Amino acid sequence: MSSALTPDQLEDRLRGIGAERYHDKHPFHHMLHEGALTKPQVQAWALNRYYYQSRIPMKDSALMARVDDPELRREWRRRVSDHDGREEDDGGIERWLRLTGALGLDRAYVMSTEGILPATKFAVEAYVHFVAERSLLEAIASSLTELFAPKIIAERVAGMLSNYSFIDAETLAYFNKRMDQAPRDSNFALAYVKEHAVRPDQQQAVIDALYFKCNVLWSQLDALHYAYVEPGLIPPGAFQPAAS
Amino acid sequence: MSSALTPDQLEDRLRGIGAERYHDKHPFHHMLHEGALTKPQVQAWALNRYYYQSRIPMKDSALMARVDDPELRREWRRRVSDHDGREEDDGGIERWLRLTGALGLDRAYVMSTEGILPATKFAVEAYVHFVAERSLLEAIASSLTELFAPKIIAERVAGMLSNYSFIDAETLAYFNKRMDQAPRDSNFALAYVKEHAVRPDQQQAVIDALYFKCNVLWSQLDALHYAYVEPGLIPPGAFQPAAS
Repeated sequence: MSSALTPDQLEDRLRGIGAERYHDKHPFHHMLHEGALTKPQVQAWALNRYYYQSRIPMKDSALMARVDDPELRREWRRRVSDHDGREEDDGGIERWLRLTGALGLDRAYVMSTEGILPATKFAVEAYVHFVAERSLLEAIASSLTELFAPKIIAERVAGMLSNYSFIDAETLAYFNKRMDQAPRDSNFALAYVKEHAVRPDQQQAVIDALYFKCNVLWSQLDALHYAYVEPGLIPPGAFQPAAS
Repeated sequence: MSSALTPDQLEDRLRGIGAERYHDKHPFHHMLHEGALTKPQVQAWALNRYYYQSRIPMKDSALMARVDDPELRREWRRRVSDHDGREEDDGGIERWLRLTGALGLDRAYVMSTEGILPATKFAVEAYVHFVAERSLLEAIASSLTELFAPKIIAERVAGMLSNYSFIDAETLAYFNKRMDQAPRDSNFALAYVKEHAVRPDQQQAVIDALYFKCNVLWSQLDALHYAYVEPGLIPPGAFQPAAS
């Protein structure tokens, strides 16, 4: 990239990465929504995804720890509240545990994260480290996958409700909240990068951050697909559906 | 673990973890040695493994950066020299590039690490972060997979030489060196943890570090197997054999 993009060109480029690389293109995602998975496979997905959920507020706290502007910290703090809860709202992590509970997984087992795939752990940790170590601009840009979340959530809720007898609307309460939260958060982050990524090198860093984050999400589905679908080789120590 | 193990009991426990969890038990490893892989699949393995090789001296430097004892730093520095080379010896990384070159991969492409699987990157980065962030005892313990290396290397060299027409002894020079280096290094690390892990909590930390490291190695083979063997779904952006 030799000359700078306009803010709107940058937005187009970022949306193009999502169209190509977001994990709604992954075969495991399609199977999940189409009802092609067994209950133990859905359990494995929810169990592993819990680890991601549980680390998001740590990731957001790491970002806040680097911000010297109270207004930006306040904006970002809402994300932590959304996940960790407020007096009147139990928060996203609790709602995720409602999902894993409805799927028949023991709450303490889920929270221990003992049964998750090592690849889940490594991918999520890479995300937390990225946000703690890269520039603030890259850290904020790595949250931009939320631009593409409403579409995948709408597909997920509709597909899972109609295809799995063990899923009901209450079970999926997590996703209903995210339908409002994700656009609000991603609109802020998008406006931030459009304003602050002006030089070509800054714009490339933003683009690379979004590629990185798409890889974080994609590789989690790769690992689930490998372990629990095809060829179905569960790494030693990870969740064994039969024994749960 | 309520009471402390004797040093020899600790060694037995660590060797037991290797017998159960080291990546010589992985199906991809068996296929590699038995000649069951195509040349592009062997290329994918060597390309991804290059990233691991290239980060080992960074991992070892991170460890040295935390050591205040010159004798221990000197011992550990030999590992960095083994990989990075000396005047009279070009080093392990260079020997690995000889392997990827013999397999027909472009040297600059390999060194760019552009084509590696995101899961390779995340697993290897998790290892580097582990060594930089955990206790020195855990950092040293995480190197103990080398206790099990001579067996896998002997199998690998014999199997690959007899099963692949595109592999010769010169191509595998990396492994011949490791047959001497790995036992020397792992004997030192084993003696260190046997001397310094005396309390039950220290011994548990050493055990967990070895489990962690086995997961780092295992998950790299999971990702290769998934992308290039079964189901053979290459993540977007990663090495495509046909286009190489």
